Amino acid sequence: MEKSALISLSGGLDSSTLLAYLLNQDYHVECIGFTYGSKHNKYELEAAKKIAKYYNVKYDLINLEEVMKSFRSNLLKNGGEIPEGHYTEDSMKLTVVPARNIIFISIMAGLAWSRNLNCIALGVHASDRHTYADCRKDFIDSMKQSILLGTDGNVDLIAPFVTLEKWDIVKIGLELKVPYELTRSCYKDQPIACGKCGTCRERIEAFERNGVKDPIEYEK
Amino acid sequence: MEKSALISLSGGLDSSTLLAYLLNQDYHVECIGFTYGSKHNKYELEAAKKIAKYYNVKYDLINLEEVMKSFRSNLLKNGGEIPEGHYTEDSMKLTVVPARNIIFISIMAGLAWSRNLNCIALGVHASDRHTYADCRKDFIDSMKQSILLGTDGNVDLIAPFVTLEKWDIVKIGLELKVPYELTRSCYKDQPIACGKCGTCRERIEAFERNGVKDPIEYEK
Repeated sequence: MEKSALISLSGGLDSSTLLAYLLNQDYHVECIGFTYGSKHNKYELEAAKKIAKYYNVKYDLINLEEVMKSFRSNLLKNGGEIPEGHYTEDSMKLTVVPARNIIFISIMAGLAWSRNLNCIALGVHASDRHTYADCRKDFIDSMKQSILLGTDGNVDLIAPFVTLEKWDIVKIGLELKVPYELTRSCYKDQPIACGKCGTCRERIEAFERNGVKDPIEYEK
Repeated sequence: MEKSALISLSGGLDSSTLLAYLLNQDYHVECIGFTYGSKHNKYELEAAKKIAKYYNVKYDLINLEEVMKSFRSNLLKNGGEIPEGHYTEDSMKLTVVPARNIIFISIMAGLAWSRNLNCIALGVHASDRHTYADCRKDFIDSMKQSILLGTDGNVDLIAPFVTLEKWDIVKIGLELKVPYELTRSCYKDQPIACGKCGTCRERIEAFERNGVKDPIEYEK
C-alpha cells in the first residue's frame, strides 16, 4: 500500500521539516492548515502557503475561528499579552490554547479517513514538553491509540520528531535543504519576528547549535 | 470541588437521558450542540433546544458545517441515501461520519478547560458498538486517557452509559421522568420520524422492552 499522510502544516520550522522528511521517505503527502484566531496566524499562513507551493503539495485551510472564539489563551486575539522569555518558564503557559492539538488531530483524522490517506502526521517535538501537554510523548502515544480505535484502524497518527529537540529537527532540515527562509515562528502580531518570545528564542538557539545563522529577519 | 460537566446534547434519547442523569447526581451541567451538515440536523437541534430549555441549562451551538463539508458519509447532505434496516447490519456503516465523536470530544475538551468545567460527558452506549468505532468502550477508555494527558489533567471524559444497551438507558430515563416526547432520533430529512432507519428501529425496540410506548409520532 502506498504510504500517505495528511500533515498539519503551520508554516513554522517543525512542520516544514516534517513535510520534507516524509516526502524524502516517498510518502504521498497532503497538507492542512488551521486558522483559529491566534495573533500570529496571518504571518504563519502566508509562510505555510509558500512552503506548500515550494514542495508542490496540496494545501487546504480550515477555519476554526468561530469554533474556538471563546477559548482562553494569551495566544489568541481575545487574550492578554504574549509573554517574553524562555520556553521553559512557567509564564509561557499563558500561550497554551486549550486542547489545540487534540482538535487539530481529530479533524485531520476525519479528513484523512474521508480521503483514504492512511496516516496523519504532526511536527510536535520534545522542546515543547514543558509548556504544552498536547505535544508530549505520553499524549501522542495515547492519542495514536485513540485515533486507531476511533477510526476502526483506518487512520494512524505519527509524530516522528516527538523525542527530538528543536536543534535536532533543524539538523535534519538542513540536510534536506528545507527553505527555512520561507518559514515563520514568532508568536507576535507583527510581520518581522520579534526575537524575544519563547518560540523566537528557541528557534535562534536551534540554528546556533547547528553552527548556522537563522536565515529569517529579526527585529533589531 | 463542585462536580461540573459539559455534555454533548444532540436532542436524541441518550444525551437527553445523560443530562437528566448528571443533574440528578448534582452536577453543574452546561450543554453544547454541533451542526455538521447531517440530513437530520435541523430536527435534532430543535429537539436539543427544547430539552435544554426544559432542564434550564446553558446550551450553545457550534457550527462545523464548513469544517466537515468534505467528509464522506451517507449521513451528510452531500452523501448518498440513508440505509433502512437494523443497526447490526453492515449497511449501517454508510452512516458513519469519519471521526465525528473524536472531533466533538476534542472541541468539548478545549471549551470545558476554557470554562473551568472539570469533565466532558457523552451519551455513547453499547448498542452503537457494531457500527460506530468511536462509540466503543475501548475507544472511550483510550480517549479518556488522551484528554486527561492532553489537558494536563484539567479535563476528564466520562461516558456513564458506555456499557449499557439502549433499553437500559430508556429504563433510567423513565425513572428520571425524561420528557422523551421532546426528543428526536430519526436520521432522515423529514419532520416526522420514519420508523425504518436503524436509529428509529432501535429506539422503538428500547421502549417496547420497557413495556412503554415511545411517545413520539412515527410515519404511518
